[in-house]
Amino acid sequence: MNYKNYPMVSRVVFGRNSFDQMGDIIEPKRLNTRAPFIFLVDDVFKGNVWVTSRIPLAYEDELIYVSADEEPKTSQVDELVEQIILTHKDRPSGIIGIGGGTLLDLAKAVAIMLTNEGEAKDYQGWDLVKRPAIYHVGIPTISGTGAEVSRTTVLTGPDKKLGINSDYTPFDQVILDPELTKDVPKDQWFYTGMDCYIHCIESLNGTYLNEFSKTYGEKAFELCKTIFLDNNLSEEESQDKLMMASWHGGMSIAYSQVGIAHAMSYGLSYVLGTKHGIGNCIVFDHLEEFYPEGIKLFKEMKKKHQISLPQGLCSDLEDYEFSTMIDVALALEPLWENALGKHWKQKITKDKLKALYQKM
Amino acid sequence: MNYKNYPMVSRVVFGRNSFDQMGDIIEPKRLNTRAPFIFLVDDVFKGNVWVTSRIPLAYEDELIYVSADEEPKTSQVDELVEQIILTHKDRPSGIIGIGGGTLLDLAKAVAIMLTNEGEAKDYQGWDLVKRPAIYHVGIPTISGTGAEVSRTTVLTGPDKKLGINSDYTPFDQVILDPELTKDVPKDQWFYTGMDCYIHCIESLNGTYLNEFSKTYGEKAFELCKTIFLDNNLSEEESQDKLMMASWHGGMSIAYSQVGIAHAMSYGLSYVLGTKHGIGNCIVFDHLEEFYPEGIKLFKEMKKKHQISLPQGLCSDLEDYEFSTMIDVALALEPLWENALGKHWKQKITKDKLKALYQKM
Repeated sequence: MNYKNYPMVSRVVFGRNSFDQMGDIIEPKRLNTRAPFIFLVDDVFKGNVWVTSRIPLAYEDELIYVSADEEPKTSQVDELVEQIILTHKDRPSGIIGIGGGTLLDLAKAVAIMLTNEGEAKDYQGWDLVKRPAIYHVGIPTISGTGAEVSRTTVLTGPDKKLGINSDYTPFDQVILDPELTKDVPKDQWFYTGMDCYIHCIESLNGTYLNEFSKTYGEKAFELCKTIFLDNNLSEEESQDKLMMASWHGGMSIAYSQVGIAHAMSYGLSYVLGTKHGIGNCIVFDHLEEFYPEGIKLFKEMKKKHQISLPQGLCSDLEDYEFSTMIDVALALEPLWENALGKHWKQKITKDKLKALYQKM
Repeated sequence: MNYKNYPMVSRVVFGRNSFDQMGDIIEPKRLNTRAPFIFLVDDVFKGNVWVTSRIPLAYEDELIYVSADEEPKTSQVDELVEQIILTHKDRPSGIIGIGGGTLLDLAKAVAIMLTNEGEAKDYQGWDLVKRPAIYHVGIPTISGTGAEVSRTTVLTGPDKKLGINSDYTPFDQVILDPELTKDVPKDQWFYTGMDCYIHCIESLNGTYLNEFSKTYGEKAFELCKTIFLDNNLSEEESQDKLMMASWHGGMSIAYSQVGIAHAMSYGLSYVLGTKHGIGNCIVFDHLEEFYPEGIKLFKEMKKKHQISLPQGLCSDLEDYEFSTMIDVALALEPLWENALGKHWKQKITKDKLKALYQKM
């Protein structure tokens, strides 16, 4: 048995307004005045002075707004890298991602592709990255994805939706400021929070589970229950707790694996472009057979927060589309093995998956 | 408000028998064949082939047995550094500490002192270390101290008992193999486990508490309750859980602070040489006034495991000894502030401390 040697985030700050420490933290990492910091910022913050005025731009530093309306793509990473190389004489001092999972994953991928040749799609997979990334910082503004602690960066490429999993992927620095999540719209708060909740369910019910993963997963699960089902939390407490749930939930899957909801959600996203958070929810809603207890609580949470999920997403799909969806999902073998054990291929069929997708 | 920017352990492996992965993990870090790995190993493992035969010695590598009967000293660090420098032509490729908190703290301190001038005592305090340490690996063989995740290395110097707290202190690599703890004697298992339990109580009841620390502390606290009060765990489960409790408890105090038991235990240790684990228990047993709930459970745990603590340790002490003890304890200002708030000096007096010590 060979256990993972997990690369952790190098440094972490936690606290309300810790966002204001960013300047002090990154400045010592400036290589020279021509080597800029590139801030990749979710474009929902365009014009939001409360956030943008606190981003410490100096010398050649550049702020690039990026839309998170779509899932991040390998081509988008390549374009950002090209733009950065063409605009600046020196290689950047660092990349700072400010946003949700999309922005964090883009920041990680851009930092990697600035030192590694070729295209981002060449690195989708496990341990294909050859050279250390440049210094990169993650600042989540929505909680749940766990992208802030993971060694992956999930990207949609021309052939597949798959992360760049590598020891060079994790952030050198994470700043956890729960206050940055205060304006997240309610539905997005729910979907992204459920990403974390589903991480816990998939990790805790997986065959890859070990005590390391379990302790993180149990804590994140408990926090999710408190956040989404208790009535006694203040807004601030709820923000603080969800940011920590995301962190611990991320650590839990980092040292085990996700499961069926994630595998099927990747298929949905690849074919229909469905965003990860809502896609997970749409899939998870139909997985009673696999995660009965987890889904019971999920339905309670949905009801309590009056969330109605889209229906009939797959009702007009062609056979070839189902086929692609199913192939993308089934290609994620570790996820199925975690969920169903070594003999998972005997337990799940393409027809079964099609029947599930048809309900969505 | 300025929050800590906490340096995390760079890499971690968890699993039974993960100890066998050590060779594969450290070998890529070998600088050259003359730059040895130095293994600092608790001398309880002398002659224990189950452990020693699995330590991958090559080239000029050296295994140094160290007794953990006494708390680690700055002079001991200096002697080890001198011995290593005199024996080997090249600076070591790395230091690997295998043992409990004492060995882990020695490994961290030796790794620091191999690149920093002067004596270890010069670096007792906060952020006094100038240069990065050499590569250092921690492999705990007893669970509870949290030394495997902390940015300190607690040492008794000529003037004080105080850690070398620095960003260069945390391990580059930790290997968590719960099986290595299987032969720990019961009393030591209890005392060191209680170090973790007390970390949780002091962190969760401290004024420095924040949601980051809280989530780690709550999980470690819950694990301790399960380990020390439930009857349903197998030996293996108990070992796995205690190793994780130590890890999370360490993270909890890392991002907050310990409290009165630790402050007073340092005094006891400085004057009487009392080991940290048992010292904490002796002190904690008399702190009902400060941690009523925590001590109630502690007494249940003690009873369940038929632990009888030494009595009358301080009964023959001279006044000047009490005085030193109290001064050492009170010098740890952050611990008192965490426990009692900003105005802690108005809440605790030397007489009060003396009265408490006299009961021990």
